[in-house]
Amino acid sequence: MQVRPAQVSDDDAIWAIIGPTIRAGETYALPRDMSRAAALSYWSSPAHEVFVAEEDGKVLGTYYMRANQQGGGSHVANCGYMTAAQASGRGVARAMCAHSLAHAQARGFRAMQFNFVVSSNERAISLWKSCGFDIVGRLAEAFEHPRLGLVDAVVMYRML
Amino acid sequence: MQVRPAQVSDDDAIWAIIGPTIRAGETYALPRDMSRAAALSYWSSPAHEVFVAEEDGKVLGTYYMRANQQGGGSHVANCGYMTAAQASGRGVARAMCAHSLAHAQARGFRAMQFNFVVSSNERAISLWKSCGFDIVGRLAEAFEHPRLGLVDAVVMYRML
Repeated sequence: MQVRPAQVSDDDAIWAIIGPTIRAGETYALPRDMSRAAALSYWSSPAHEVFVAEEDGKVLGTYYMRANQQGGGSHVANCGYMTAAQASGRGVARAMCAHSLAHAQARGFRAMQFNFVVSSNERAISLWKSCGFDIVGRLAEAFEHPRLGLVDAVVMYRML
Repeated sequence: MQVRPAQVSDDDAIWAIIGPTIRAGETYALPRDMSRAAALSYWSSPAHEVFVAEEDGKVLGTYYMRANQQGGGSHVANCGYMTAAQASGRGVARAMCAHSLAHAQARGFRAMQFNFVVSSNERAISLWKSCGFDIVGRLAEAFEHPRLGLVDAVVMYRML
């Protein structure tokens, strides 16, 4: 599996991954009815650096990196990761996270923060923990899950 | 003291408050060299509802309110408050916070979150605590303070 910078020609593949995740509305705080254009514009916004994970020429996942804050907070990175449903369980998210940690260090970031990990997304929380992240905050009932109703979100953080 | 929606004619007064705070760089994660236009564009961005606190026709403080997240997170409000240096200690921030809590409830928000309160800003932390907010997260060395170097930031939260 190779993780490389995304190109405009990856837009269809990226939408094929982020579209179903957004529509499901279970893990990201984004409008479920977001259009393809709005979703791609958000994911590939000017402040984001976007990567894709590819195997045998097929894009299996994508992530973005940005500075989480400006000014005095600009040394902390933030990322969002999404994996194609059909590639779940194959280590795509772990590979992207490892890539992002190395890339963030290379760019001079000193920490990485995930602002809003939905607490019912236990698989993600467990994965980020295994990648060195700690839960450093809990936001009570901050997420309206389409099936579970109001659930907590957690803030995860690690130094680089 | 009256808290009312900001108008375009308040721009000079708002800049007179947020300019020095941004330049000081001690409490907000914004570029210290931000231009007047960029600062006003940020403070009064389309997703923000902006208010001013006024006494005897003089604007002493300003705050914005927005949804902190989209989609399943859009029921949690976020605000930023700034008080004119010369009006410090006169209850301006407390009056704005009380106004914002009532306004957020009226708008149907169910919680309010401050994402990034610089830990050295003890006065603000103490004020928000007295307004019912709890520290629910701590971000280690997430803020580069111009005098103190790297300091923590905290996440504060309260239900409405």
